[in-house]
Amino acid sequence: MITIAIDAMGGDHGLEVTIPASVNVVDSHLQVKLILVGREAQIRERLDQHRCANRDRISVQSASEIVAMDDPPAFSIRKKKDSSMRVAVNLVKDGIADACVSAGNTGALMGTAKFVLGTIRGIDRPAICGILPRISGSAYVLDLGANVDVSPEILFQFGIMGSQLIESYEGRSSPTVGLLNIGVEEGKGDEAIKAAAELFKNSSLNYVGYVEADHIFMGDTDLIVCDGVLGNVALKASEGVAQFIMSVIKQEFTSSAFNKLSALVSRPTLNAVKSRLDHRRYNGATLMGLNAVVVKSHGGTDTVGFGCAIEYAVKSAGSGLVERISQRIAARMETETIRESVSAAQADRESPGVTSCSTQE
Amino acid sequence: MITIAIDAMGGDHGLEVTIPASVNVVDSHLQVKLILVGREAQIRERLDQHRCANRDRISVQSASEIVAMDDPPAFSIRKKKDSSMRVAVNLVKDGIADACVSAGNTGALMGTAKFVLGTIRGIDRPAICGILPRISGSAYVLDLGANVDVSPEILFQFGIMGSQLIESYEGRSSPTVGLLNIGVEEGKGDEAIKAAAELFKNSSLNYVGYVEADHIFMGDTDLIVCDGVLGNVALKASEGVAQFIMSVIKQEFTSSAFNKLSALVSRPTLNAVKSRLDHRRYNGATLMGLNAVVVKSHGGTDTVGFGCAIEYAVKSAGSGLVERISQRIAARMETETIRESVSAAQADRESPGVTSCSTQE
Repeated sequence: MITIAIDAMGGDHGLEVTIPASVNVVDSHLQVKLILVGREAQIRERLDQHRCANRDRISVQSASEIVAMDDPPAFSIRKKKDSSMRVAVNLVKDGIADACVSAGNTGALMGTAKFVLGTIRGIDRPAICGILPRISGSAYVLDLGANVDVSPEILFQFGIMGSQLIESYEGRSSPTVGLLNIGVEEGKGDEAIKAAAELFKNSSLNYVGYVEADHIFMGDTDLIVCDGVLGNVALKASEGVAQFIMSVIKQEFTSSAFNKLSALVSRPTLNAVKSRLDHRRYNGATLMGLNAVVVKSHGGTDTVGFGCAIEYAVKSAGSGLVERISQRIAARMETETIRESVSAAQADRESPGVTSCSTQE
Repeated sequence: MITIAIDAMGGDHGLEVTIPASVNVVDSHLQVKLILVGREAQIRERLDQHRCANRDRISVQSASEIVAMDDPPAFSIRKKKDSSMRVAVNLVKDGIADACVSAGNTGALMGTAKFVLGTIRGIDRPAICGILPRISGSAYVLDLGANVDVSPEILFQFGIMGSQLIESYEGRSSPTVGLLNIGVEEGKGDEAIKAAAELFKNSSLNYVGYVEADHIFMGDTDLIVCDGVLGNVALKASEGVAQFIMSVIKQEFTSSAFNKLSALVSRPTLNAVKSRLDHRRYNGATLMGLNAVVVKSHGGTDTVGFGCAIEYAVKSAGSGLVERISQRIAARMETETIRESVSAAQADRESPGVTSCSTQE
């Protein structure tokens, strides 16, 4: 049985979306328990409006406050200690829930989760990993917007975390990893990305080199690593284009009587296209690098989308993701320590005194 | 009459694309002369294979070398002085052509154009401005990949150049300008973008604030300003998604006998969709900030796309773009100089001697 804490008040639509999504999830997943966190009376009232065959697997945890979509992270952490978001994260910290899901303010969720749960030892910055669609399979992209300025070392940590997510999530070992850049040639990009490329090359990750942003959707690299700014721009640009194309299709299929007729004939096919491009199916991004699984849902999503985010949390919580990342990072720190002591010992042997260094030459 | 120099050897397909595109352009534009630059015998041989009613408006200029798609910019400038790209740019420098078009190596073209033509006085870095499609109208995005590290001042110069391009190109005054960022709220982004926002706010540009990347395709801001890395990622991500969606549509419409039939019925509508999404219609990006018009075509484009790039150069060359930018930048430099001397004079009046400053208080 996996227990997920739900920030029932979070997101643009709050209970209107979180309650029916939760009901659907417990009714379709036998091994899932949900704890709905928020204003108890309101939650119970909403729950009563839905038929739920498995109501016994839904419980309610009271929380009096709500983090607003524009609350600064520091404010929500310091001033809203009884928010639905904070209490949901606390339930994970206290071992009562295995993971939590929120459609609330991304910055506040990241800040709260980092503050309450802490990061895995050896991880400098948590990051957001999302899944984007492809003709076959999906692309994992990390970071989708949590970190503005990142060092090469942090990009490399993103590579480790993302690889572990794919291994535990897809059951595929040694996924391919690419660094998002403005060209695939060696000399492209700024100094930070070139330094990151060196770290990836000298690691045990299955690094394939630089990739360009079209590769996210048309390529075959499993994990695309980038800073949060590039990740956000790639994600938002893709959302914009997808919306634009769907609008063009709609406009053209309704532009004349004949076109409307052809839309009628093609409806099953057009619906299949729409369903495959449905971004709700990809809703739910994991906040990675924390000592527990926290999933962020898109703030404006609907019942279907929020349901996907809960399912994503169920899958992540059951996959031992945090332990895998911890082990991998610990192993790396150990190797680094051994390497450092070996080079220190070597340096000692080669030049026992600082001053003798130049006289030996 | 407008004369355009064509780098006939440039791009992935060279003469195979540049020659038929050139023939089409002179046959459909009565006020255009083209100078095809490259290996003369090959060009003439190719030209003879096409029927051209206005062959008298096409001339050939010999150039013995070709810049390879992977030649480093410095190498192409120093070692390939008789390349088709270089000679085409020289023709503009010498006033023989009004503008030039190349589908060759972007870095080499930017480097060559900057070296031969020089930048407009007061412009620190040339940049690439592209046009992207929308439901109604288009979005101009600057920079699309020329500049990796940019200062707030340079972003602001991009704003001036792009605004002038839109004014001269669309005949619309005071176009709206947005800064690409990872959120629209005031506090978002790094220090450089916040400083750039201040410059835009305190200028006469029609600045509307931060915009996110989906806004490029679904918003209504005329000009989106960003550094070359973000511009490149937004552009490439959008290309990838568009390709992905078109592949999904194709797959679904051929996945069964019934779907194939519905594709047949919907063919005119699907063709209309395809035509509106045809990226070739948006081919041709202006290298801005130079002392003349240089247009970069996508390297892998076909005859239709390269023809659009030539038409874009015709339009830009006839619009007085360079003069407009020069005037605007000169006016700004003058205002800045006046402002500086006024504040210097004020400072002098207020504190005639450095030491007296503290004694007066």
